[in-house]
Amino acid sequence: MIGVSSDIPGDAQQFHPNIGSSEPAEPSFARARRLRLHTHHELVAIMRTDSPVCHAEGLAAHTQVYIRNGSQPIAATLYQVEGDFLAGDEIGLSEAAWVALGVEEGTVVQVGHAPPLESIACVRQRIYGHRLNGAALTSIVGDVVAGRYADVHLAAFLTATATLPFDEDETYHLTRAMVEAGDRLRWPSEIVVDKHCVGGLPGNRTSPIVVAIAAACGLTMPKTSSRAITSPAGTADTMETLTRVDLDLGAMQRVVAVEGGCLAWGGAVCLSPADDIFIGVERALDIDTEGQLIASVLSKKIAAGATHVVLDIPIGPTAKVRSVAAAERLEATLGAVAARFGLVIRCVQTDGTQPVGRAIGPALEARDVLAVLTGDADAPPGLRDRACTLAGVVLELGKVAEEGQGRARAERTLADGSAWDRFQRICQAQGGMRTPPTARLTHPILAAHSGRVTHIDNRRIARLAKLAGAPDSPAAGMLLHVRLGDDVIAGQPLLTLHAQSQGEMAYALTYAAANADMLAIVP
Amino acid sequence: MIGVSSDIPGDAQQFHPNIGSSEPAEPSFARARRLRLHTHHELVAIMRTDSPVCHAEGLAAHTQVYIRNGSQPIAATLYQVEGDFLAGDEIGLSEAAWVALGVEEGTVVQVGHAPPLESIACVRQRIYGHRLNGAALTSIVGDVVAGRYADVHLAAFLTATATLPFDEDETYHLTRAMVEAGDRLRWPSEIVVDKHCVGGLPGNRTSPIVVAIAAACGLTMPKTSSRAITSPAGTADTMETLTRVDLDLGAMQRVVAVEGGCLAWGGAVCLSPADDIFIGVERALDIDTEGQLIASVLSKKIAAGATHVVLDIPIGPTAKVRSVAAAERLEATLGAVAARFGLVIRCVQTDGTQPVGRAIGPALEARDVLAVLTGDADAPPGLRDRACTLAGVVLELGKVAEEGQGRARAERTLADGSAWDRFQRICQAQGGMRTPPTARLTHPILAAHSGRVTHIDNRRIARLAKLAGAPDSPAAGMLLHVRLGDDVIAGQPLLTLHAQSQGEMAYALTYAAANADMLAIVP
Repeated sequence: MIGVSSDIPGDAQQFHPNIGSSEPAEPSFARARRLRLHTHHELVAIMRTDSPVCHAEGLAAHTQVYIRNGSQPIAATLYQVEGDFLAGDEIGLSEAAWVALGVEEGTVVQVGHAPPLESIACVRQRIYGHRLNGAALTSIVGDVVAGRYADVHLAAFLTATATLPFDEDETYHLTRAMVEAGDRLRWPSEIVVDKHCVGGLPGNRTSPIVVAIAAACGLTMPKTSSRAITSPAGTADTMETLTRVDLDLGAMQRVVAVEGGCLAWGGAVCLSPADDIFIGVERALDIDTEGQLIASVLSKKIAAGATHVVLDIPIGPTAKVRSVAAAERLEATLGAVAARFGLVIRCVQTDGTQPVGRAIGPALEARDVLAVLTGDADAPPGLRDRACTLAGVVLELGKVAEEGQGRARAERTLADGSAWDRFQRICQAQGGMRTPPTARLTHPILAAHSGRVTHIDNRRIARLAKLAGAPDSPAAGMLLHVRLGDDVIAGQPLLTLHAQSQGEMAYALTYAAANADMLAIVP
Repeated sequence: MIGVSSDIPGDAQQFHPNIGSSEPAEPSFARARRLRLHTHHELVAIMRTDSPVCHAEGLAAHTQVYIRNGSQPIAATLYQVEGDFLAGDEIGLSEAAWVALGVEEGTVVQVGHAPPLESIACVRQRIYGHRLNGAALTSIVGDVVAGRYADVHLAAFLTATATLPFDEDETYHLTRAMVEAGDRLRWPSEIVVDKHCVGGLPGNRTSPIVVAIAAACGLTMPKTSSRAITSPAGTADTMETLTRVDLDLGAMQRVVAVEGGCLAWGGAVCLSPADDIFIGVERALDIDTEGQLIASVLSKKIAAGATHVVLDIPIGPTAKVRSVAAAERLEATLGAVAARFGLVIRCVQTDGTQPVGRAIGPALEARDVLAVLTGDADAPPGLRDRACTLAGVVLELGKVAEEGQGRARAERTLADGSAWDRFQRICQAQGGMRTPPTARLTHPILAAHSGRVTHIDNRRIARLAKLAGAPDSPAAGMLLHVRLGDDVIAGQPLLTLHAQSQGEMAYALTYAAANADMLAIVP
């Protein structure tokens, strides 16, 4: 046993009386300065190389520092700068750090080494293949939500759980930890329906239509959506081109109380806040895993107060789920984990062999959604059909339609204009309807020869739309003019790229030229 | 098949004539500005939010950009800043980016999106558990060395290979790729000896002594060392407190031609340059794996031109290798991979139950090394003994001592002063000898009660030295005053912490108080 005591200096060569026996040293302080430096989500702090604080605390460039303004500290990456860009007692903050810290110009904050995180030891165990229990996952998720993880730690955690996938117990505990790390909504109605698509299919934008139909039929459907992970658009990205989606808890509750439904971004309310942090890194790595997928979907739904959830699982060789067998495995794990939370789920296997509708990208998909809701004769039939199928299951699960009658009821609700009416009212309630933006540049990709379209590679189509700028540029993406089985003639436009900048258009065109076989045309 | 052609504009709503059919868009340019921003190894670029280049290229904050000055591009993380800190046509560069790009103030550089990296697809496959072949590992290592990987990608690659460990083939191909990505030294002598410790044992600083002995006995031993990965000091960190270690190829060759040996930092010559990049991220994550360890050791040795290598493998419950069985597994893989390169290796299993010597931390360990070399009566006997054992095997492997006679020859070389003489000449040849720095603050940790030392936790001892500031503060670390089996009385100093800043001393003291059982004392 070691005691930390300074009663006897022993052989200490230069005993320093300022170091208390078990007391921490005097904390160091600096004045906060807003740099208006945009780093996306990364918390960055900059101090002078010769700052007395760096000297006293032993802070080098690229160390993780804790910055405290009153209560909870934030962890930031420290960079150092020479010269008089900053004063010696200033700490410059990136916008993300500024917001997270909640300071004003000149606020005096405490600065020091980030203490070792206990939960990082759990991540290290997981890297080496040891399973994590509920307590470990709770501490990891808690530190992640508190902003204490650097990107490399997040990347390591997510990679370890991709290489050795989560088992059912870990998935359950991760889901629970993610629910508990945020707010949890309660709704007055006994049945609260929701839907989710496990993704992997470009242009599959049924949620806005399903919410409009369900709400028009009297159900409570407070839909929250993520932004895109690895796809060119998420429902939140698409809806943001039509209305405000960053609703806080109170705003969501007001919209749902009046209209029965809403279409909000899940990250603006504090539902499963770890999810968006994980998603940011998954996006950078372009990975997602079954365990994270299940925890992401279920934690959002449970936190949002859903009781009955319909899951759209597209199946196709280039969709996220590639076979009926894989879908059934996913359904089994999803069902088992959901059951441990008392959540009723219904999975619907759908066609995932080609993109849904014709638009890929936030604003372009929004136009497809409007076309279906307004009964436009030119609306993509695939999107309309799929939305009615899913809405039908929602109506049956929500007990406003008999088994087998849901789809017909959904179609009537579209045809009689009540879904469109409800959708407009929801957008109005969320802050007013917007017109989706139009891209500055468009460019057609033409068929090099005549033949029949026999294969469409969803992944490379999605990649192409992302290179064109989606979803960061909401107007970017593409319109796909052909579907599987179509006959085309040489020179006919196969798709049209939409982009906001010449750089992005050039990258997309280069990629399209190098990946001509992403649309297979057999003469 | 898709053809990228603009012969027929098709249904393009606003066909933009500036976008050539298969030509990339006009490149964008900016003037380089040195920010004197220290970010460690990270390549950071900053442009104005309203910069025309960002607009034209569609560059958002936190995207990876390519910056080209003539030939090879570098990849950097782009941040954006509001206001007039930068001119609209300037790109501010961190010191690491400035050096990598090799520009001068105002040099016009080309800026654009980083194109998708083919090798990232290989990393993604590895994340999902697919083994990598030689071509894949060559392309990954090539892109890593070219600075095209962000930290999250490095973290993902290293984590994936920790969770699903490399097999022998992958380890071989990684080693080969790491050798080929850098320079390769050739020496005139037929036998070139080297040694390496697989680490995990604080204070195990035998290399400077072994090199001095081997060179004094006429062998060629051009030793390159890494800095610490997860330990409080590497040989390069320790040697840097005694002389210059950042020798380039020419300097190394000059030193070795005259003195027979050198003690250089491997990162300054371009031997296996990927290794130091991997090590930086492994250090942030506090992980290292057998495959990476083998590739790291062997790639450095092969690139350095070694033909015969002695490996010190400390075994103990808190060392890196915890059992004889684990050591034998490691030796088998090491031997198998080394044999594929024609490299002769000899593994020496050593006692890893407690730190070697008494010092932990670069400067403190340097003083221990000097004590052994100068024959100081107070020199730590454990360090002297271990150095003689290893030097003996080196002398036998290098054929200047008969089997079984190496250790005696090593001891004579120490005793007659020729090793100390050779060490001083090597330091002089490397740029002159320095006096290791002394820490500003020291603080003893005292025994809380009397008893016998029955266990020393190497990992927590190392962690404690790191919290005190080692190796970033070369003078920081600790002196350990007790060894296993020692009897101590209450109040007796067990160890003395050395630190350069009050902040670090405070963290170390807090950790010591919370981990009193890292030195077990049984009454």
